[in-house]
Amino acid sequence: MPALRVTLGERSYPIHVGAGLLDDPGSYAPHVGSRSVAVVTNNVVAPLYLSRLEGALARARARVVSIVVEDGEQAKGWPTVERVVDALLAARCGRDSLVVALGGGVIGDLAGFAAAVYQRGIPFLQVPTTLLAQVDSSVGGKTAINHARGKNMIGAFHQPLAVIADVSTLGTLPDRELRAGIAEVIKHGFVLDPKLVDWLEASIERLLAREPAALEHAVRRSCELKAQVVAADERESGLRAILNFGHTFGHAIESGVGYGEWLHGEAVAAGMVMAAELSARAGKLRRTDCDRIRALIARAGLPVRGPNLGAERYLELMQVDKKAAGGQMRFILLDAIGGAALRGDIAERLVREAIAAAAH
Amino acid sequence: MPALRVTLGERSYPIHVGAGLLDDPGSYAPHVGSRSVAVVTNNVVAPLYLSRLEGALARARARVVSIVVEDGEQAKGWPTVERVVDALLAARCGRDSLVVALGGGVIGDLAGFAAAVYQRGIPFLQVPTTLLAQVDSSVGGKTAINHARGKNMIGAFHQPLAVIADVSTLGTLPDRELRAGIAEVIKHGFVLDPKLVDWLEASIERLLAREPAALEHAVRRSCELKAQVVAADERESGLRAILNFGHTFGHAIESGVGYGEWLHGEAVAAGMVMAAELSARAGKLRRTDCDRIRALIARAGLPVRGPNLGAERYLELMQVDKKAAGGQMRFILLDAIGGAALRGDIAERLVREAIAAAAH
Repeated sequence: MPALRVTLGERSYPIHVGAGLLDDPGSYAPHVGSRSVAVVTNNVVAPLYLSRLEGALARARARVVSIVVEDGEQAKGWPTVERVVDALLAARCGRDSLVVALGGGVIGDLAGFAAAVYQRGIPFLQVPTTLLAQVDSSVGGKTAINHARGKNMIGAFHQPLAVIADVSTLGTLPDRELRAGIAEVIKHGFVLDPKLVDWLEASIERLLAREPAALEHAVRRSCELKAQVVAADERESGLRAILNFGHTFGHAIESGVGYGEWLHGEAVAAGMVMAAELSARAGKLRRTDCDRIRALIARAGLPVRGPNLGAERYLELMQVDKKAAGGQMRFILLDAIGGAALRGDIAERLVREAIAAAAH
Repeated sequence: MPALRVTLGERSYPIHVGAGLLDDPGSYAPHVGSRSVAVVTNNVVAPLYLSRLEGALARARARVVSIVVEDGEQAKGWPTVERVVDALLAARCGRDSLVVALGGGVIGDLAGFAAAVYQRGIPFLQVPTTLLAQVDSSVGGKTAINHARGKNMIGAFHQPLAVIADVSTLGTLPDRELRAGIAEVIKHGFVLDPKLVDWLEASIERLLAREPAALEHAVRRSCELKAQVVAADERESGLRAILNFGHTFGHAIESGVGYGEWLHGEAVAAGMVMAAELSARAGKLRRTDCDRIRALIARAGLPVRGPNLGAERYLELMQVDKKAAGGQMRFILLDAIGGAALRGDIAERLVREAIAAAAH
């Protein structure tokens, strides 16, 4: 199948989706040339895929240095960026070197940010190995690290040269992470594509059973939808914000329970139920659609309720969320399944009700 | 006089040069709106200009928070960026907030980088208060911090919304810093504008005596030249590299003696003599022009010789310079006074000779 494409003028790039791309030197050859290549990955992904990637890069004639960081959200901070920068300098990587991010969302965000700031920006490739990264975080150029006061508070928009999503790597993914990735596929359906929601309702068991054709369809369609949104609004000055559906509540959950307790996709899943509840209570979304949303999330084995933090704590956590503009709270709400918009006119009372309806 | 302009499509911005701009709310009003404004400055500049800037911003109806960091190159590191980010988060600054960099090159680089990475990038204004910052570093969007292995190794291209260069702030500048700024004015003449070199040879005493008209001419012409180069090559993929004339040697000097011992402009001055020597020895520049370059730098009270580090150490330090591509050394050399080009074909022997000719 032809590659998808994110159309952004001189920053345009292809998204390759398929089985076996990881081992194919042809995946990398157009981007490597005579460059030094630095692979950034973690200690869980490295034993599974690093030597295979290094082999393919070597066959594409790259000089390769690999940087293995700790697995997990706690690695997504400045100390790890500094370690990556240090390794790049030690390997005499210059402005024409290439970073390859091999792993999930944390690695993509971290390695992408390191590439964005190393010598004021060098190119990078996304080689996502989790469903979440393949369907969402590897596409669109958002890179970031966390700050003690909030997730992703430090970052850059830095588009990759290409995304190489090998769906066969999803075979080694723990079930819980597979489901967390499905949360973002579901999100793409809810905000943009009623047909994808229909397909998910018909195919969720095949997806959970990791049928290759189902995985490839989910990844391809998610990337296609995301690419369209990113092309229309690269830096999230408008439309792109709809992809944050469920994320204002979701970030509050992640932050409130401590990062790492809930997976990002799990928090977004419960956050989407809260946001759907809020949409219904604000008179934007039909109750039957709200119920349909909750049902699909439940069938995917994802949480439909957030932790019991208390409405006050939720509100407090949401106020430092990046979407707070001029101090006012804003939410991405659904008008229908497949239609979303950013709303700034939501009464706090309704937000409290939505939290109460979808928290333990 | 009309504002100069850096023409970069949607990232275009004006450069205002004049006396009294710091206190004029009109300097800021077009950029402030209802935004939160965070002023970043240091403990030397703050007592001189912070309350005046805050007053003008308040009259332009901005909500202002000020962040005062330590003076000096050692503040240009991640810990200070983290402090700025922390203060921005504590003040609930969102994506629509504005950072104002009040100070010299270090503050501009640091505050600009903090703005570049805060919540993936927020806008900022440059209010340079040193000659070096007014004639060079505040224009063009280069922001950066230092890494233990090298200066400016971490950074971003992030253009300001405007540059507001109040030449009356140069009255409080120590003589040594004034001369360091003049080094960059001289550099602009050497690489781009023989008429500016003629003017400098005729006016250097007026400039050293801080005659307002001379200062304003030097700042305005430097900004005009730099704006043209930046407009043609924003991300330094070609032409813009000529502005690094003298900087490969200069960075080696700064790094070799330890940052802070030599001012950047002083190191660039000695570096320009080395680069002119190399240009002459490589047969690109006439010996008489090389002598003229050395004479002007000496008349400005700037060093015409680098420290005695030994040629080996110079070469070692220059190999981690950012302009090293694929391991090969490259230099900006002059063909004439007012004409420069990036050269990749220079024999190491000539580099050693040039160092020996212009180091103690």
